[in-house]
Amino acid sequence: MKKVNTTGELALIEQVRAGLRTTNQRVRLGIGDDCAVLRPARGHEFVVTTDLCLEKRHFRRDWHTAESVGHRCLARGLSDVAAMGARPVAAFLSVALPNTCTATWFKGFMRGFHALAESHGVQLAGGDTSEAPGSEVLADIMLIGTVPQGAALLRSGAKIGDGIYVSGSLGGSAVELTSLALGKRFRRQSNRARQTFPEPRVQLGQMLRKRNLAAACIDLSDGLSTDLQHLCVASGVRAAIELAKLPIAAGASEAQALHGGEDYELLFTARPSVKVPARLAGLAMTRIGTIVQGSGPVVEADGLELKAAGWQHFRKPARF
Amino acid sequence: MKKVNTTGELALIEQVRAGLRTTNQRVRLGIGDDCAVLRPARGHEFVVTTDLCLEKRHFRRDWHTAESVGHRCLARGLSDVAAMGARPVAAFLSVALPNTCTATWFKGFMRGFHALAESHGVQLAGGDTSEAPGSEVLADIMLIGTVPQGAALLRSGAKIGDGIYVSGSLGGSAVELTSLALGKRFRRQSNRARQTFPEPRVQLGQMLRKRNLAAACIDLSDGLSTDLQHLCVASGVRAAIELAKLPIAAGASEAQALHGGEDYELLFTARPSVKVPARLAGLAMTRIGTIVQGSGPVVEADGLELKAAGWQHFRKPARF
Repeated sequence: MKKVNTTGELALIEQVRAGLRTTNQRVRLGIGDDCAVLRPARGHEFVVTTDLCLEKRHFRRDWHTAESVGHRCLARGLSDVAAMGARPVAAFLSVALPNTCTATWFKGFMRGFHALAESHGVQLAGGDTSEAPGSEVLADIMLIGTVPQGAALLRSGAKIGDGIYVSGSLGGSAVELTSLALGKRFRRQSNRARQTFPEPRVQLGQMLRKRNLAAACIDLSDGLSTDLQHLCVASGVRAAIELAKLPIAAGASEAQALHGGEDYELLFTARPSVKVPARLAGLAMTRIGTIVQGSGPVVEADGLELKAAGWQHFRKPARF
Repeated sequence: MKKVNTTGELALIEQVRAGLRTTNQRVRLGIGDDCAVLRPARGHEFVVTTDLCLEKRHFRRDWHTAESVGHRCLARGLSDVAAMGARPVAAFLSVALPNTCTATWFKGFMRGFHALAESHGVQLAGGDTSEAPGSEVLADIMLIGTVPQGAALLRSGAKIGDGIYVSGSLGGSAVELTSLALGKRFRRQSNRARQTFPEPRVQLGQMLRKRNLAAACIDLSDGLSTDLQHLCVASGVRAAIELAKLPIAAGASEAQALHGGEDYELLFTARPSVKVPARLAGLAMTRIGTIVQGSGPVVEADGLELKAAGWQHFRKPARF
């Protein structure tokens, strides 16, 4: 995490550090040594996740602003930490920039990154930088969170009879992506900026854990149909979804709500005896179905099979 | 760490898992959920590092075999953990493959990765996969190690009067790189395979910590002149190096020993009262100089300034 080979890289690292304001007491040693040092609180353990954030695969510089790319990069990791019911602690950012990328663009990227980090108390504790080998911006984000020992919410906790819930609404990110493709731009403050400035449900995840509400949990990054499948496979169960109950975002189609990814809401199950509030952390909690007997990757809706078909935004456009 | 969008990615992840044999008891939950869960032993904390490993920047597919690339990717992270005197625990691997990359190549990459992981008891506990946006193989490695609280070896521990030591010999990696450029290939077992199959000094780092031998430590990844500068800056001191004492690898020039990177030896300082054995962990320990008063990024050799000039292998060739 210290390969400072070039003046370019040194300048890059200075830019990364420039916006560094947030510290977290679990980080005993941050940027500047061979490794960072992290210590969990007594009786706690760490959750760890890593997510690639590659131009033409996960974002497009002609659609997403630099701030949006920095925000989304961190949000991907934060959403995984949220799904475990953990509190985010530290981020590690590896980034490679092509020479077509301006200093202004990277400053915007770091501004978007740091703004979200600050709002969640996340310390940027390390990373690596390099010149990109091709013409695309490449990033990889690693997030570490803390949770009481054995208390993390898992995908594998669902049982037959559990209610299936989602937070917020679904499909909004897909709607915005369609608008971006048509040339519309969204400001950070916009309620419609679900694609460009998604809000990972960090507070909600911790509430679900602390109040013992969730039996199983996963974040909705690939789309409901795909992520529900992951939860079912991990738990060895099947899900019966009532399509009429889906909390579809304004302007979204049922297909976008089912298969549109990157909503970064939480999908969780709760035991029949648990009363899930109608609202939590400022978000609507909607029961969309029930865990039933069965196995395998099939989701049932009104007796029909619902195939996993998470939206693959950039697979085709990236070929152009 | 679970973005499984495509059949291609699912197949990739299956390949990653296929060679998975090593487990580590500090990993409470590995691949398969939104995050992995790691718990340090009582009284211990974690060290964390991340390193990019990009084709044309850190390796070339026409010079390095697939096994070598997988080995080197993990070795970069392990060497950082070694420099902290920590015991490696878990690795997280993010990898993006272009469609010019064959399944056979990636199997070789994972074989090289898993072989080194196994020899150090490192569990592959997560990661991410994607199709690469360009024509280059992209990887990012994250390593987590464990160390007793407050015991990690830091770059900042050097004081005036400390002896400066290096393990093994220097410049061997640069020599091999020159041979690779001329078309020569090296087998893993070869003593000369310092570039293609470097051995991170994991055992040595832990011995330096446990026996209270090292006051400050850094791994030699960028080259002695550059990494010594990092240590001096972090400690607020200056170094006086005796060039005649440099343990130059067979066939290497003084310049390659000073500036050739990727030897992955350890550079450390020891208090004057500490007797450093001539050999440790099967490696020669050579005193190459003394920490003196002063500050700034200058290293002195026989009164002459020694400028940091870490070898930048792929900066130029990558342009071609």
